[in-house]
Amino acid sequence: MIHTVKVHNNNNINMFTVESGKNLLDFLRENSLYVSTPCGGQGTCGKCRVKVKGLMKEPSEKEKTLLKSLGDANDLRLACYNTVEADIEVYLGYSDKEASIVTEGIEKNIDIAPLLGKKSLKLDVPDINDQKSDVDRIIEAISLFSTKDSGIASSIVSGTDKSVDYITMESLETIRELPKIIRKDYIVTVISYEGKIIGVEQGNTEDKNYGVAVDIGTTTIAAYLYDLKTGNKLDVYSTLNPQGKYGADVLSRIEYTNKSSSNQLEMHKIIIDSLNKIIGIFEQNNGILREYIYSIVFAGNTTMMHFLMDLPARYLALSPFIPVTTRMYKVKSSELGININKSGLAIVLPCVSAYIGADTVAAVLSSNMNKSDEIYLLIDIGTNGEIVLGNKDWMYSCSTAAGPAFEGANIQYGVGGIKGAIDKVNFTDKLEYHTIGSEKALGICGSGIVDAVAGMLEKGIIDETGRFIDKTEYSPENDSLGRDYIERLEEIDGMNSFILARREETEINSNIIITQKDVRELQNAKAAIAAGIKVLIKQAGVIGEDIKKVCLAGGFGNYINISSAFKIGLLPSDLNEKNVVSIGNAAGAGAIEGLLSKYNLDEMETIKNKIKYVELSAMVDFVDEYVNCMFFE
Amino acid sequence: MIHTVKVHNNNNINMFTVESGKNLLDFLRENSLYVSTPCGGQGTCGKCRVKVKGLMKEPSEKEKTLLKSLGDANDLRLACYNTVEADIEVYLGYSDKEASIVTEGIEKNIDIAPLLGKKSLKLDVPDINDQKSDVDRIIEAISLFSTKDSGIASSIVSGTDKSVDYITMESLETIRELPKIIRKDYIVTVISYEGKIIGVEQGNTEDKNYGVAVDIGTTTIAAYLYDLKTGNKLDVYSTLNPQGKYGADVLSRIEYTNKSSSNQLEMHKIIIDSLNKIIGIFEQNNGILREYIYSIVFAGNTTMMHFLMDLPARYLALSPFIPVTTRMYKVKSSELGININKSGLAIVLPCVSAYIGADTVAAVLSSNMNKSDEIYLLIDIGTNGEIVLGNKDWMYSCSTAAGPAFEGANIQYGVGGIKGAIDKVNFTDKLEYHTIGSEKALGICGSGIVDAVAGMLEKGIIDETGRFIDKTEYSPENDSLGRDYIERLEEIDGMNSFILARREETEINSNIIITQKDVRELQNAKAAIAAGIKVLIKQAGVIGEDIKKVCLAGGFGNYINISSAFKIGLLPSDLNEKNVVSIGNAAGAGAIEGLLSKYNLDEMETIKNKIKYVELSAMVDFVDEYVNCMFFE
Repeated sequence: MIHTVKVHNNNNINMFTVESGKNLLDFLRENSLYVSTPCGGQGTCGKCRVKVKGLMKEPSEKEKTLLKSLGDANDLRLACYNTVEADIEVYLGYSDKEASIVTEGIEKNIDIAPLLGKKSLKLDVPDINDQKSDVDRIIEAISLFSTKDSGIASSIVSGTDKSVDYITMESLETIRELPKIIRKDYIVTVISYEGKIIGVEQGNTEDKNYGVAVDIGTTTIAAYLYDLKTGNKLDVYSTLNPQGKYGADVLSRIEYTNKSSSNQLEMHKIIIDSLNKIIGIFEQNNGILREYIYSIVFAGNTTMMHFLMDLPARYLALSPFIPVTTRMYKVKSSELGININKSGLAIVLPCVSAYIGADTVAAVLSSNMNKSDEIYLLIDIGTNGEIVLGNKDWMYSCSTAAGPAFEGANIQYGVGGIKGAIDKVNFTDKLEYHTIGSEKALGICGSGIVDAVAGMLEKGIIDETGRFIDKTEYSPENDSLGRDYIERLEEIDGMNSFILARREETEINSNIIITQKDVRELQNAKAAIAAGIKVLIKQAGVIGEDIKKVCLAGGFGNYINISSAFKIGLLPSDLNEKNVVSIGNAAGAGAIEGLLSKYNLDEMETIKNKIKYVELSAMVDFVDEYVNCMFFE
Repeated sequence: MIHTVKVHNNNNINMFTVESGKNLLDFLRENSLYVSTPCGGQGTCGKCRVKVKGLMKEPSEKEKTLLKSLGDANDLRLACYNTVEADIEVYLGYSDKEASIVTEGIEKNIDIAPLLGKKSLKLDVPDINDQKSDVDRIIEAISLFSTKDSGIASSIVSGTDKSVDYITMESLETIRELPKIIRKDYIVTVISYEGKIIGVEQGNTEDKNYGVAVDIGTTTIAAYLYDLKTGNKLDVYSTLNPQGKYGADVLSRIEYTNKSSSNQLEMHKIIIDSLNKIIGIFEQNNGILREYIYSIVFAGNTTMMHFLMDLPARYLALSPFIPVTTRMYKVKSSELGININKSGLAIVLPCVSAYIGADTVAAVLSSNMNKSDEIYLLIDIGTNGEIVLGNKDWMYSCSTAAGPAFEGANIQYGVGGIKGAIDKVNFTDKLEYHTIGSEKALGICGSGIVDAVAGMLEKGIIDETGRFIDKTEYSPENDSLGRDYIERLEEIDGMNSFILARREETEINSNIIITQKDVRELQNAKAAIAAGIKVLIKQAGVIGEDIKKVCLAGGFGNYINISSAFKIGLLPSDLNEKNVVSIGNAAGAGAIEGLLSKYNLDEMETIKNKIKYVELSAMVDFVDEYVNCMFFE
């Protein structure tokens, strides 16, 4: 039996015919209709919320429990639990919205020296006394040029100061086109790369030379379009990683790809499709042609890099956590299915290990740790916390499983960094909070949770073990805590909780609370990060005072209140608070630096090779530190 | 209207349905039924002979003239002139048969050092203290191996004595397979090439390592299968170049490819298909798998190399004769559509100019000119005569358009080196001749023509200008010529002629004669070669006596009577007859040498760069010499 499903998505309404009994989440996925599924559709996260009008089955107990935190919005359902049984209308947009992400990072002055050079040439017209082949005609012209003009940037003509033999043209695809391209007017533009001519264009096209840098986050993709002749940023675009529909975290996605090679290919294709769409948007918005984009540089964690290259990621998720490869690859973009210039290159930045990815390597470059005599500490906090400690001579890294608490998951009212998320909390006389976009509160994001717990700790609402004080221990008269705070203490469903925002102030028509369990989640998360930092410090044989700069990378690092981070012990007290800086999307910034200069690509290879990876799961020290760090100081 | 055509081809009979009015040659080509078409189907060569039973249109005058030389075989027709107008039966096999070609050449003792090496490795099993990526695990293992065992051949592990970084694995296709391949039993075999690992196989497969060398002649393809572990020749196979259906000579074929890019692609695909079939035959005959063939080396003239790589050949045929490229290419065989190991390489040997091809470069290697202190002269006589003069320090080359006389074309009863061709003629008391395979004579091939003209010259049947003596000048009594010879003089169709074989001795039921026109054709041809030799000698500033070895390459060079060649002045008299040797299929031999050792590939690049090409069409000297050489001395 066939039903009609009308889907409302922002201002679009689409009609579909669906077979009776079809799982609602499957239906949405198959039609590329986005709902958030951090758990990968396994029925555990309660995030794939949709509003449904029309006849549905009664929700199961499990669905009811998961829906409970949504307050009174009774026509909300979880797509993964439901099937289409009648003609219905489905409203999207009740799931987490597109994240507001940081796409600035640190930008430095970089000498423009892109990996691929372009150089126009005026060729001699062949005659009976000059019978050079088309290939030799071009190679000799560019060699002559590079000899004549010693000032020519090595980025334009690789192979300078070498004999003609060192410049080659190997691609038959390019060679096949030469007779036509040359004979228009004997003016051509060559695209060169490491002594190889990889493309030849008719006429002088030197002015059209673009590149793209991309940071593929597990959650968000951020892409940057640059003019590689001028070094100017032309455009920035960010979007959710569409792989999210197979799970919010890398492990769910790896599990999906393990099931079959077609799943693996699907995971690869979905990201490629998204990249091609972004490139299309760049074309439209900037009046350029993708044929003139010659390189695209990718940062991202090791799993994302595996998916990007269509490598099997299975062993990343299994001890002893073996990547297929961590090296840098410069492959023809067409080999990955990315539609830029047909000779264009996709540069996949190097990783260090299964859980220290190219994003971390790029972030190290961006942080300048690799140029520094002094010791830097770089921390990128997400589901995993990637930590690098070092200077220009040595680097140690580790990755520690913080869990998704800082990203709002596993927290009862946790949300990502979306509009309406409580991102700042102030515990003065009265509690004050701030939401992203100053909209009505609908949840609490990572930086808000850190502020809240720091404040609760300071106010004595929780003790150093993380335990909530008993409300009965307080009376409004006998305490410094103040009436506002005491009234926020409440036992909800048998669990001590603290009300952050009251029902009437919220978008979701429900109190937004921090529960005892939420505090425990945070304790686990911060202990993992702090213990990782301490182990690296010990491993390097330095002390906290030696660390002259602490760089917090990524969106969370940008929003977090540093003082709160110290208060809860996320950052150990032996670090100096004054030395802490937020460096934004350092992974994206590093990818851009690589796009603008091949020397930065080389430098990232050096960084990759310099970083010693410390596997925490193999260390007794780490377990000790982890337990110690569970407490608040 | 549809007719039935029954085609008899050797012992096969096939039925086809054909639309009324369909050109018979087109029909045969489209069904891959071979008939010889030296003129490319333009109706001028008269070689596309088939026997037809059933109703046909009356032959045109032109067809009649062309059919005339076929004697009494009245049911023979030329396919190109005829259309299918009724149900008919067509018999093939009246066209030139498959050539018997020379596939031996010179073979030398060669140290086996193939371009691609194979090496088996036992890998360490990863654990939590050894988290190297799959790629690094293999690269480190092979690096370790090459450090430990300094005796390892550089052909097996390129990048020896270099740091690990110099060994790379760049192919994503290979990398994607690693997790599975490695984890079977941690024994793998790597295929390496110039410091790159281009393939990884499960288990130890070192013993299975084959390669193929191919000489793509305009007329014939000769292929050689070698075991690259032992250096043993396993098999040889030769077949007609199927591109022959688009013309016997390169110019007709180029013209065909100029018409459209699909024609160009067709010319490419037809040779690739043929190569894949040959590889299939090698598999069957030798019990090997094409997956274990890792390299295939190609020699051939510049046009054949263009077709092989699907390069547009248009400008090879137009002054100033510009190739798209003359360089050596080592490309993935899959890029050309050649089905060997998926990581296998196709090596296209380098050419010098539009008319000095990779076959000549390979022949120079085979001749040892490149190692010689003394001066060698290499001559490969075909439609073009390619001539190289030089030693290890310098080389000059030219290509001279001899026309197809030496290949039997443009000669009234000329045929290729097929069975029944008169290949030797002896002018003693009585004329004696020999045919290939000692079968009944059906024509005369190049070496036979040279013998015949040399003998006619010696006997005074033609004078030093090439003119036939008038039969009336002779009477049987008053002359040394002898009765047998005088009786062979006859005016046929108004032209003085000499009867080589009488109707009753021949297969074709017609006299086989040499006409005045045939002698003129030969004079043109031999003058072109001799003048080329003289120009090169002059260009190099040497004299004939300085030349210590004259190498005749190719099938014609193998069969020709050297003494006759001197008599007619094909080889100038200032060369020493004692220094002349036939070196057989030197192009094929050179390709084999390249297959067996990458150092020979390097050497061929050196030869290519060393050879100075002399463009005869731009030289006044050549025209002078050419006119001089027209006479007999």
